[in-house]
Amino acid sequence: MSEFTHINQQGNAKMVDVSNKEVTKRTAIAHSSIIVNETIYQQIVQNTNAKGNVLNTAQIAGIMAAKNTSTIIPMCHPLPLTGIDVSFEWNTTSSNHFELNIQATVSTTGKTGVEMEALTGASVTALTVYDMCKSISQEMVIRETKLVEKTGGKSDINNG
Amino acid sequence: MSEFTHINQQGNAKMVDVSNKEVTKRTAIAHSSIIVNETIYQQIVQNTNAKGNVLNTAQIAGIMAAKNTSTIIPMCHPLPLTGIDVSFEWNTTSSNHFELNIQATVSTTGKTGVEMEALTGASVTALTVYDMCKSISQEMVIRETKLVEKTGGKSDINNG
Amino acid sequence: MSEFTHINQQGNAKMVDVSNKEVTKRTAIAHSSIIVNETIYQQIVQNTNAKGNVLNTAQIAGIMAAKNTSTIIPMCHPLPLTGIDVSFEWNTTSSNHFELNIQATVSTTGKTGVEMEALTGASVTALTVYDMCKSISQEMVIRETKLVEKTGGKSDINNG
Amino acid sequence: MSEFTHINQQGNAKMVDVSNKEVTKRTAIAHSSIIVNETIYQQIVQNTNAKGNVLNTAQIAGIMAAKNTSTIIPMCHPLPLTGIDVSFEWNTTSSNHFELNIQATVSTTGKTGVEMEALTGASVTALTVYDMCKSISQEMVIRETKLVEKTGGKSDINNG
Amino acid sequence: MSEFTHINQQGNAKMVDVSNKEVTKRTAIAHSSIIVNETIYQQIVQNTNAKGNVLNTAQIAGIMAAKNTSTIIPMCHPLPLTGIDVSFEWNTTSSNHFELNIQATVSTTGKTGVEMEALTGASVTALTVYDMCKSISQEMVIRETKLVEKTGGKSDINNG
Amino acid sequence: MSEFTHINQQGNAKMVDVSNKEVTKRTAIAHSSIIVNETIYQQIVQNTNAKGNVLNTAQIAGIMAAKNTSTIIPMCHPLPLTGIDVSFEWNTTSSNHFELNIQATVSTTGKTGVEMEALTGASVTALTVYDMCKSISQEMVIRETKLVEKTGGKSDINNG
Repeated sequence: MSEFTHINQQGNAKMVDVSNKEVTKRTAIAHSSIIVNETIYQQIVQNTNAKGNVLNTAQIAGIMAAKNTSTIIPMCHPLPLTGIDVSFEWNTTSSNHFELNIQATVSTTGKTGVEMEALTGASVTALTVYDMCKSISQEMVIRETKLVEKTGGKSDINNG
Repeated sequence: MSEFTHINQQGNAKMVDVSNKEVTKRTAIAHSSIIVNETIYQQIVQNTNAKGNVLNTAQIAGIMAAKNTSTIIPMCHPLPLTGIDVSFEWNTTSSNHFELNIQATVSTTGKTGVEMEALTGASVTALTVYDMCKSISQEMVIRETKLVEKTGGKSDINNG
Repeated sequence: MSEFTHINQQGNAKMVDVSNKEVTKRTAIAHSSIIVNETIYQQIVQNTNAKGNVLNTAQIAGIMAAKNTSTIIPMCHPLPLTGIDVSFEWNTTSSNHFELNIQATVSTTGKTGVEMEALTGASVTALTVYDMCKSISQEMVIRETKLVEKTGGKSDINNG
Repeated sequence: MSEFTHINQQGNAKMVDVSNKEVTKRTAIAHSSIIVNETIYQQIVQNTNAKGNVLNTAQIAGIMAAKNTSTIIPMCHPLPLTGIDVSFEWNTTSSNHFELNIQATVSTTGKTGVEMEALTGASVTALTVYDMCKSISQEMVIRETKLVEKTGGKSDINNG
Repeated sequence: MSEFTHINQQGNAKMVDVSNKEVTKRTAIAHSSIIVNETIYQQIVQNTNAKGNVLNTAQIAGIMAAKNTSTIIPMCHPLPLTGIDVSFEWNTTSSNHFELNIQATVSTTGKTGVEMEALTGASVTALTVYDMCKSISQEMVIRETKLVEKTGGKSDINNG
Repeated sequence: MSEFTHINQQGNAKMVDVSNKEVTKRTAIAHSSIIVNETIYQQIVQNTNAKGNVLNTAQIAGIMAAKNTSTIIPMCHPLPLTGIDVSFEWNTTSSNHFELNIQATVSTTGKTGVEMEALTGASVTALTVYDMCKSISQEMVIRETKLVEKTGGKSDINNG
């Protein structure tokens, strides 16, 4: 048999080796948001949605997705998360639409950062709000999803 | 944008932060049982069930469920389990029904206890016995599922 | 090579062939319950648990587990469920303990019944209540888990 | 035992019963996008990312996530998808940033629509681009994620 | 915004649309085998393996993997399988090694064939035998894994 | 209640306790291969397969399967993998068939070896090649899947 010609050097996928990275406490905070109309806003605030408590369901979905990130994102390293918190805030400055801000905070003690876990948690929280409210209107829009802060590892980041 | 009003302080879900908890060896033992009729009992003992070996299938299901606990129980921390054992004992004191006792023992080296893994393992073992035997009778009843013993972490527990 | 000696006829596992069964509407209702102490009862009723809304989290866990039943129970057929409802009722007849009754109702249109989905949904709902409240006391006990009613397919069952 | 007081009527979660909905062909198209800097753009276009082919990996992640939507989004019905396509387009109108448009098209023959599958597919595609490129910069932003078109079922939608 | 330039036409991944394919009964049979040494053979046959009944565990793993094929194989369509059977046969013609033949038979009623489900079931059965016995020797070899027979759909295949 | 009669000592399954094993860096390399005909070979090499880039899709599937090994192989311990690499090499010595060699390299820092992760990664890579190409011909054969090398833990192995 001929030598291995290392097709993988030609640009294909690998989960990079982090064996030699340090085990440290790491945290990440990600942000997303979803724009809803007034009917949906009222239904969420008054907890009258026919499928259940919108924010609580979305929060639980976000937490479970953060835990499953390494099975959803192909090259993401598996990590035993030590804490996940998803919180909400309404931004009602516009007269005809309502923006639900979503913040996901994730922590671990491990060899890689948890920014993908925070981003995945925030995204799935937003998607679940959409799912719970889509029988009212499907014109909801999920807005900017981004990393806000990251600590631990080689370098801290603060995009906030 | 206004300040985050911390909707999450109002009673919604979070996976509590255990970053600062100590990594120690931890074990938990949980118990469940299922009541079956004599036909089912004979079929299990004589290994004549049409779907397969009932106890072995149930045991494997319980072990796999214990490993997957953090994806089944929303606020449960992921933990790399180091050992899982599911064992059985027949209690045949009654003349017209038979009780299969199920004991699940789980161990890990981690920051949180493994009682949910032991309880989930015991429950899924019982549910699988039900599934394997339900074509005979659906009057089986899963009885008390509870924590028997827990070691490691802040405080040991013994409900045995 | 010698003939296949059909080791599988000797009592090992198979997912039985239901290709020729009729596609009909099928429902199942399962029941479980969990005994908690007064502190936990008050915390659930007043929604003051530190990990979140206990009943809502448990309900969501039960619904998600019902959908995943065929990946949890080894010989269970995969089925596209069409509806899942988990409801609760407090039984407070005893002066010093409180029983939370759990009822899971599942429906599908398919070739096999959904009793395992209802039972798994009810069990995981109870397990999640345990998880949410276990920092208060680990003396909770999950009580009888059983099938209450089943419709569709060859024969209806009513154990209620 | 007292009557079931239907705690579930008080606003908690349920997967709504669609048993009586018609089985029809249904499609949905969702859109997302991610803003990257020029270094990342060049790396994607020239296929020089150290973790692999960015677009192909993202596409596969989006397709797999679309298939798993009912395990990620709590109240989403399971559906056997019949087709999933994720496509990309670069929007390079700005001089200093580059926007990768993502379109996910999903089809099924079933009782419920596939908008959540399309939205989840588009979101996870964007998240995977982020993961593949985050070692270069973490200032990427996932922009609007929304439903573009939906056919089949009660009413067609076109937000395009 | 410019037109979608259909990057996906350039060779990237899609789950092909089978919406218009006929729903028919389909079956597939796949074969694999694993070569073990005499110590392992004796341990399997006498059921003395320290980790459990080797063949039964392998069989259950194969059945569960067949059910999960569409989450393991990226472009594979999800299908509600109606039956799975894994059987074994020893081929002991050689004096110093033993070959365990594995046959996985899968059936469904659906729009696509189940050859990947049969092949995945056979492969995972073989891998599980390896896992159960690897503390004895790691010189086991999994031999030819291939499709033996396929019925239903456009064309039957018989490679047997 | 009578004493636990330890049915589990009679040969049933357990996930053996590795609590007391040392945490060390561990690696494993596994090999598999698949035989394809010339049409499939040309399609892979020229990247003209209708379902996408065959090798890249297979590689991603193999990496994701390696991460999920403990949920696929029943008695396999969960491990947070630190690196996974899947590479390919063509062996075209025969005039009428083409063999794609697959090598999966896995690393972790943990209490158990990663040979099952490497073997599962290699197998699923081969199965995915089959899936991507099966519309051309289903006479592909997956050949020897085996452990090539293992380091860390009690004893190194080199079957290469």
